[in-house]
Amino acid sequence: MSSAIQDSYSDEASVCYGCGRLNERGLQIKSYWEGDEVVCRFQPESYHTAVAGYIYGGLIASLIDCHSTGTASAAAYNEAGREPGTEPRLRFVTASLHVDYLRPTPINKPILIRASVSEVDGRRATVSSELYVSEVLCARGTVVVSRMPEKWLQILRSG
Amino acid sequence: MSSAIQDSYSDEASVCYGCGRLNERGLQIKSYWEGDEVVCRFQPESYHTAVAGYIYGGLIASLIDCHSTGTASAAAYNEAGREPGTEPRLRFVTASLHVDYLRPTPINKPILIRASVSEVDGRRATVSSELYVSEVLCARGTVVVSRMPEKWLQILRSG
Repeated sequence: MSSAIQDSYSDEASVCYGCGRLNERGLQIKSYWEGDEVVCRFQPESYHTAVAGYIYGGLIASLIDCHSTGTASAAAYNEAGREPGTEPRLRFVTASLHVDYLRPTPINKPILIRASVSEVDGRRATVSSELYVSEVLCARGTVVVSRMPEKWLQILRSG
Repeated sequence: MSSAIQDSYSDEASVCYGCGRLNERGLQIKSYWEGDEVVCRFQPESYHTAVAGYIYGGLIASLIDCHSTGTASAAAYNEAGREPGTEPRLRFVTASLHVDYLRPTPINKPILIRASVSEVDGRRATVSSELYVSEVLCARGTVVVSRMPEKWLQILRSG
């Protein structure tokens, strides 16, 4: 897949501040297949500071969160042998988010997050991820995602 | 304490996008004592959406993260019988962040987070929190924080 999984989300489900392509104020997080992992690259803004030179933890949590739901969606379509964005939609919401902050994360270089689905249990899946800057592991994520109920998707669609 | 714990942070440690009073682009999260808990109130912006009407998980994670380090600082000063902001500084960084998203969190009403230190182990502490909108519990946080090394504080101070 050469386009980001988020670019296959329907318009009404593309307003997320983290990863919605239609949220102009948002972070516009993008997730792509790379081998058998799903990766996200992100360049923090100068104001995303924790202390001078390092990014605040909430941004790391936000990136891991949206990249994990995106990874789950990409993996679910892959598993189903379907093109992302085809119906019925395979979208996920976060049930729980866990981030281990291993060291201060520099702000001036691009972030790389590598993620994959480590466990599937019915409509739930666990997405494991590692966040690097300049090939140094700075944080680890474990996110439990839950398949978005079709009812929600219908409500969103009807506005 | 009638002023927010974040307002007692030193200038060089007040640039956090989440809670720094000197970060004009940031969320300016504030934490206050209320009884024996530390509370944070926050009104999301209209663009902090996940899907229409609800806030994205990364904001919830950001609020819980900064409010938890603030709660740890407030509690540590309280325990030491000292005024917040006095030397040596009692500041904390996040070692791990865990958020359970219990239900979609409405965007159009103020968020209330109640937090307290549930465990102390040497220089580490665990901060437990609950996030409410209109008295409905929407998320739970468990954050392990670590006392910021004096060396870091010195480095920050020297610019």
